Amino acid sequence: MTQWNIQNIVTELQQARNEWRTQQKSLKDFGGRELPSKEEIKKIMNDLCGILFPMRLGPHDLRQQSENFYIAHTLEKTLYALREQVKLNLTYDYKYKKHNENAEVIDVLAQSIVSEFAQKLPELRRILDTDVIAAYEGDPAARSVDEVLLCYPGILAIIYHRIAHEFYKKDLSLLARLIAEISHSKTGIDIHPGAQIDQGFFIDHGTGVVIGETCIIGKNVRIYQAVTLGAKRFEVDDAGRLQKEYARHPIVEDNVVIYAGATILGRITIGQGAVIGGNVWITQSVPANSAVSQSSATKSQV
Amino acid sequence: MTQWNIQNIVTELQQARNEWRTQQKSLKDFGGRELPSKEEIKKIMNDLCGILFPMRLGPHDLRQQSENFYIAHTLEKTLYALREQVKLNLTYDYKYKKHNENAEVIDVLAQSIVSEFAQKLPELRRILDTDVIAAYEGDPAARSVDEVLLCYPGILAIIYHRIAHEFYKKDLSLLARLIAEISHSKTGIDIHPGAQIDQGFFIDHGTGVVIGETCIIGKNVRIYQAVTLGAKRFEVDDAGRLQKEYARHPIVEDNVVIYAGATILGRITIGQGAVIGGNVWITQSVPANSAVSQSSATKSQV
Amino acid sequence: MTQWNIQNIVTELQQARNEWRTQQKSLKDFGGRELPSKEEIKKIMNDLCGILFPMRLGPHDLRQQSENFYIAHTLEKTLYALREQVKLNLTYDYKYKKHNENAEVIDVLAQSIVSEFAQKLPELRRILDTDVIAAYEGDPAARSVDEVLLCYPGILAIIYHRIAHEFYKKDLSLLARLIAEISHSKTGIDIHPGAQIDQGFFIDHGTGVVIGETCIIGKNVRIYQAVTLGAKRFEVDDAGRLQKEYARHPIVEDNVVIYAGATILGRITIGQGAVIGGNVWITQSVPANSAVSQSSATKSQV
Amino acid sequence: MTQWNIQNIVTELQQARNEWRTQQKSLKDFGGRELPSKEEIKKIMNDLCGILFPMRLGPHDLRQQSENFYIAHTLEKTLYALREQVKLNLTYDYKYKKHNENAEVIDVLAQSIVSEFAQKLPELRRILDTDVIAAYEGDPAARSVDEVLLCYPGILAIIYHRIAHEFYKKDLSLLARLIAEISHSKTGIDIHPGAQIDQGFFIDHGTGVVIGETCIIGKNVRIYQAVTLGAKRFEVDDAGRLQKEYARHPIVEDNVVIYAGATILGRITIGQGAVIGGNVWITQSVPANSAVSQSSATKSQV
Amino acid sequence: MTQWNIQNIVTELQQARNEWRTQQKSLKDFGGRELPSKEEIKKIMNDLCGILFPMRLGPHDLRQQSENFYIAHTLEKTLYALREQVKLNLTYDYKYKKHNENAEVIDVLAQSIVSEFAQKLPELRRILDTDVIAAYEGDPAARSVDEVLLCYPGILAIIYHRIAHEFYKKDLSLLARLIAEISHSKTGIDIHPGAQIDQGFFIDHGTGVVIGETCIIGKNVRIYQAVTLGAKRFEVDDAGRLQKEYARHPIVEDNVVIYAGATILGRITIGQGAVIGGNVWITQSVPANSAVSQSSATKSQV
Amino acid sequence: MTQWNIQNIVTELQQARNEWRTQQKSLKDFGGRELPSKEEIKKIMNDLCGILFPMRLGPHDLRQQSENFYIAHTLEKTLYALREQVKLNLTYDYKYKKHNENAEVIDVLAQSIVSEFAQKLPELRRILDTDVIAAYEGDPAARSVDEVLLCYPGILAIIYHRIAHEFYKKDLSLLARLIAEISHSKTGIDIHPGAQIDQGFFIDHGTGVVIGETCIIGKNVRIYQAVTLGAKRFEVDDAGRLQKEYARHPIVEDNVVIYAGATILGRITIGQGAVIGGNVWITQSVPANSAVSQSSATKSQV
Repeated sequence: MTQWNIQNIVTELQQARNEWRTQQKSLKDFGGRELPSKEEIKKIMNDLCGILFPMRLGPHDLRQQSENFYIAHTLEKTLYALREQVKLNLTYDYKYKKHNENAEVIDVLAQSIVSEFAQKLPELRRILDTDVIAAYEGDPAARSVDEVLLCYPGILAIIYHRIAHEFYKKDLSLLARLIAEISHSKTGIDIHPGAQIDQGFFIDHGTGVVIGETCIIGKNVRIYQAVTLGAKRFEVDDAGRLQKEYARHPIVEDNVVIYAGATILGRITIGQGAVIGGNVWITQSVPANSAVSQSSATKSQV
Repeated sequence: MTQWNIQNIVTELQQARNEWRTQQKSLKDFGGRELPSKEEIKKIMNDLCGILFPMRLGPHDLRQQSENFYIAHTLEKTLYALREQVKLNLTYDYKYKKHNENAEVIDVLAQSIVSEFAQKLPELRRILDTDVIAAYEGDPAARSVDEVLLCYPGILAIIYHRIAHEFYKKDLSLLARLIAEISHSKTGIDIHPGAQIDQGFFIDHGTGVVIGETCIIGKNVRIYQAVTLGAKRFEVDDAGRLQKEYARHPIVEDNVVIYAGATILGRITIGQGAVIGGNVWITQSVPANSAVSQSSATKSQV
Repeated sequence: MTQWNIQNIVTELQQARNEWRTQQKSLKDFGGRELPSKEEIKKIMNDLCGILFPMRLGPHDLRQQSENFYIAHTLEKTLYALREQVKLNLTYDYKYKKHNENAEVIDVLAQSIVSEFAQKLPELRRILDTDVIAAYEGDPAARSVDEVLLCYPGILAIIYHRIAHEFYKKDLSLLARLIAEISHSKTGIDIHPGAQIDQGFFIDHGTGVVIGETCIIGKNVRIYQAVTLGAKRFEVDDAGRLQKEYARHPIVEDNVVIYAGATILGRITIGQGAVIGGNVWITQSVPANSAVSQSSATKSQV
Repeated sequence: MTQWNIQNIVTELQQARNEWRTQQKSLKDFGGRELPSKEEIKKIMNDLCGILFPMRLGPHDLRQQSENFYIAHTLEKTLYALREQVKLNLTYDYKYKKHNENAEVIDVLAQSIVSEFAQKLPELRRILDTDVIAAYEGDPAARSVDEVLLCYPGILAIIYHRIAHEFYKKDLSLLARLIAEISHSKTGIDIHPGAQIDQGFFIDHGTGVVIGETCIIGKNVRIYQAVTLGAKRFEVDDAGRLQKEYARHPIVEDNVVIYAGATILGRITIGQGAVIGGNVWITQSVPANSAVSQSSATKSQV
Repeated sequence: MTQWNIQNIVTELQQARNEWRTQQKSLKDFGGRELPSKEEIKKIMNDLCGILFPMRLGPHDLRQQSENFYIAHTLEKTLYALREQVKLNLTYDYKYKKHNENAEVIDVLAQSIVSEFAQKLPELRRILDTDVIAAYEGDPAARSVDEVLLCYPGILAIIYHRIAHEFYKKDLSLLARLIAEISHSKTGIDIHPGAQIDQGFFIDHGTGVVIGETCIIGKNVRIYQAVTLGAKRFEVDDAGRLQKEYARHPIVEDNVVIYAGATILGRITIGQGAVIGGNVWITQSVPANSAVSQSSATKSQV
Repeated sequence: MTQWNIQNIVTELQQARNEWRTQQKSLKDFGGRELPSKEEIKKIMNDLCGILFPMRLGPHDLRQQSENFYIAHTLEKTLYALREQVKLNLTYDYKYKKHNENAEVIDVLAQSIVSEFAQKLPELRRILDTDVIAAYEGDPAARSVDEVLLCYPGILAIIYHRIAHEFYKKDLSLLARLIAEISHSKTGIDIHPGAQIDQGFFIDHGTGVVIGETCIIGKNVRIYQAVTLGAKRFEVDDAGRLQKEYARHPIVEDNVVIYAGATILGRITIGQGAVIGGNVWITQSVPANSAVSQSSATKSQV
């Protein structure tokens, strides 16, 4: 044991954890980890993608003639798996908030949340189809709708977001965030699960896009890489603590286009049909059908 | 079955797919998925990296004395695997365009495409060596060419791009895009496989870089994170549909440096030796040897 | 063999490698690859995350009552694995620099480096706790410290960075960079392992952030996506070669906030408490408690 | 290369292969391996077991309410996979026999073989149910039919055999043998796929059981470990070569019991209801309802 | 769908299952599979082997100095996993016997069974040590006790048996049988978990050994491959059904040796110190210290 | 911790290990496990099978035209991996025998052993070809030499044995036994690596065959399942301890056939051309060209 002095390190790490737990007033009687599992959610999301787009994102050996069999079997399995994650999220929430809820209440609630989610899948498919078309029509480089579904990170991001948002609406914050972060890590596109996004939404390239929790985005909006739809400043309460969960991000109306690198901050409105140029910085509302752009940089001979 | 009402959801999902397929006029007789497979392409790309740089990106237990054995064996296996993906891409294209091409024509074509690609590998290695040197010489933080090969996302991006571009030139759009997106997801660097890039190319840090389909980039160009070489606007035909596949992205001549966050749009030319400052927005050509920069932001006491 | 002409390609690839090796004067007697392994380091980093935050980032079936057992066993195993990677880094360095060091010296050195690192783990945990709190308090969207630990890429980036930095300080450049690039690929956040970052550091969203090798960052600094803390220009020696390893990146003092897309270049100082607005371009020092922002873009009716 | 003298070994191995191939007159133009794959067949057999007994040998997360979905989806996928293996077997056979059959003939044949096999699955399930009951009723140690299905190697062996036999009947010798050997390796029970076995068959313990190619076994036969139903001697033709494929193994009529280690050789008949004692050696027919046993060994004081 | 007529096959398979379930009167409301899982039990058994013999059967990178850490962490994790399997066994039993037991009773029972088992582990290790020594001393080919532990199937079989027997004693029939069958499949040695075996037990080679449920075996018994300790005949009740669970297998007293292929049947006693020769057939008790052997076969000139 | 009382069990297990180690006088300063690894050896054996029979036991996507490349690359990699296992075996032996040998001596010895082994591979292939032919010619059920190579456990057993025997001859007892046991577990055939077996050897079915350490088997011998070639009795020294490593198993001369279940014990000779019937028990030499058989069991009417 002397070689690394393991015992000593273990003891000091425990002390560090104890301090943290005391400070966080975290419950000591916590049994296991009882948190939704990123690995499980990754599998669930893969299956949901296959269920929504079986011949493009489903298993490689699938044939059209057995789509329904595949979907029925996978759906049932996936809903049970999802229900487990929903339960873990609910259990965590109750513990965190120090509510006392028994397991039965959680079971019933989880069942009803997952059941409602399941009924929504056909609607989700339809709205995602509008996103695919928006991408195909909005990018001159797109050769086919299949290329869009297979290769565009913006499509993956919106599939994940529309699913995450359903759980956000049910107050399953951890589950929703985990879905969003899996997508963020794959695509570089960071959409908070709280954002409300209407149909026909297209993000091109996408790396660096950030869309905040209280954003409201209309129909047929197109945005490019590195666009931020963020909060301008954070409000604090009298004790100097951040206010949470109030409307602080932009409203983007129908048919707006926002080019790469634009930064739009605060609860302002970008009116319908507006075109926001690249790299601009906007903190005030923009009227409908207007165009905002940065003046070109000055050039100077070396 | 009642618990989730699976049958109902399956039926509604099918209806949604039917609507989509009717709208897309997609072929109903499609057998299997017959699309290039992202998983297969990932493996092929890993093997091609090992073939090109055996002692750095090849298998861990490789020794210099058996490099050639490893390459010969892996190359043969990989070319067959690649030919499968090429065939899937060709089959898809013919179906999508509703051409009638029999399997034999596709076999011959796939064989000839992969064969030509194989002959190009030594040339690819040589040009990639110039990229590695450019990175080593262009970054004060680089300690060795090995660090560059092992750790720089910009190097991975250019290896993937130079391979993807070969397939783009053969009109294998799906295959090329899939390679590009694998790289994009790993590095945050989004280079359209159509871009023509000459030797000695270096992207530092790289996250958020976007290089468009019709870009032409000269020798020894260096660019930094979040640089966009994009299209300014999209042209539409009389029916209001996007024009596709015309020259719409910048030409960047030899020895240009473009700093982080610069946005360069449209079919303009950045003249050789020009230096483009960070965060600037450029939509008009820049003469050779000029320097363009943003004026520093004004400061104000709080 | 005729089908692909493998033999010919192999020979030409060898020629390309020989030219490169001659040019790089690389050692011919190199036995195996003797380089740290990205795959091994990924496993080690996962285990270190579990050791530091056992109930959040450790194995799913862990229970609080056996935290110490898990840590002790995992720690011992991980330190041996880490020592292997340290040895590979040292061996590489000696070969690259053409020093003659025997295996015994390397063994002793590796043991002492890893041993010192191990003693530091409790301190790392404590400082990482301040980062978690900074994230929780700094983001109105954060619901709990657990959400922060499980979902925030900025937290993963700072855990990886603080570990990478320990190895950077021991001159294990390759190992440190590999850790940094694993994190960069997952999060889109590129922190050079050389950067010195004090406690309470929070990066929100994070995609596109670049922090350079010689940066010095004070306490409680908060930065947003796409912020660059970079070098302004690179100095060259009389022979025109880049100077390496001199102070060339910003100093950011305590309590500074830097909003999305800001670019701060050169060895300048951002004084404590300063607030840097989004998308600004700064190449000169900023006094304490000042606020810098871009003027809003002008709007024009279409 | 000198260290192991690889090149030399490779050359000598090639020489050995060349001698073998010359001696075997094997075709030189053989492209790839074109043989059924043991790995693929293992997966197919697992799936077939799940299809036949979904709630016992199917996936763990299956529920009764979605049995049919699971079966439909898995069946379709498995039949395609099986067709591939059937094609490989047919291709091999034609090459081996130096017939010239084009790919189309093979496709049609494979399709019809697999299709017929598929129609037989419900009948196979019914006959396997009689085997399960025979095991449950025949072993005092069996607690339930589920224990039989989950734990008895004799059940696994008969499931595999009944499937292998279907392919044997279609002259797919390699495929049938590979299935039999997978079972042999798992259970120690070696049933040649040619053996004809009627319903209600039970092998207890099973290790060392050998049942030859031309055996015919009646209803409700029970045998124990290490029983051999073999050939007595092999007939040779005038050139001294073994005669193949003639009836040379026992006929075992209905309701026979054969205890452990009995050896029964040649085309003899064990009459219905006969009981064969352990370790006996039988080379002549046994009348119905008779009992054959070894006399107990003599004992002698040490 | 027409190609394979899947729907039809699915329907017929369902019919077959329905007939079976009606015949077996199996519960229709069964939710999931709720049976112990062979895959899970395999992992648990591997971990238990590592816990009992950490430096021989534990993880490869274990060192003696952290044995206790490894054991403590693995033990805790394994006991929870084991408890899950015990619960599944209990749930199944109650359903099968149509008892109504609520989940709470099962939880308490499972906890107490696993807890008792855990306390027994040190005793198991001690008795297994006597088995290792018996093997080393009983086989002239054994070079070391380590060779015995690493290479002897008889040792693996006795480790698995002694664990399975603990669960058999608690009436966990399915769990015990699954453990026994995993061992049987690996070693060819089939020991029913009910068998009572005292210390210093050694099976050499082992393939084909069968030891029945009610066997009682004394200290320091050595047996060879293909030995059967079985039942002579099965008793039936008035209705002609097999009697289950009565004493029907041999008692083997201390220091007995039984050579290869011997078959010993019925509730007889092999007296202490007896030596049973190979291939003999014994159905009556053998006095202590006696020797039983087969007379050599007669030879005849060809 | 109270739930399972882990700490207590850990302590008691340690006590049990301590008693064992004291009794075994095992070295306390043992660092890691330093034993050959069964997992590693499995991989090495798979690769050696591929090297010996590339188009039958090599990778599925291999083509004849790149056999040599595959072999050269795999061989080099495998020899290094093998050398590691040889070193572990040598290190263990020196420790076990309490010799003091430094690492350098072990390195040189391991290199020379593996190098000699490598040179023998072509000879091994040639002798294995005679075994394949013996199987094909000796079994009326064999349809082709390919069926023999792919499906016959007896072939797998002899490949493994001929390799294991090479290491046995170099006194690498553990390595040789591990190879033999991997084969035993897969095939049910237990050949001690010490057995000397000449060319054209065929074991049919094979389950339960045992061939002892000092057996000498001539050319073209054919044996069936459950044959034992064993020791008659074990000699003890004056202290009553087993004598090890003296000739104690049968010599079987050329062209002998031994049918299923025969037991042949002691240092006797089965003369050339002899035919040994099934289930016989032989403890005395058998002259050349003789036939030995069991008299058929007597039958009795029930």
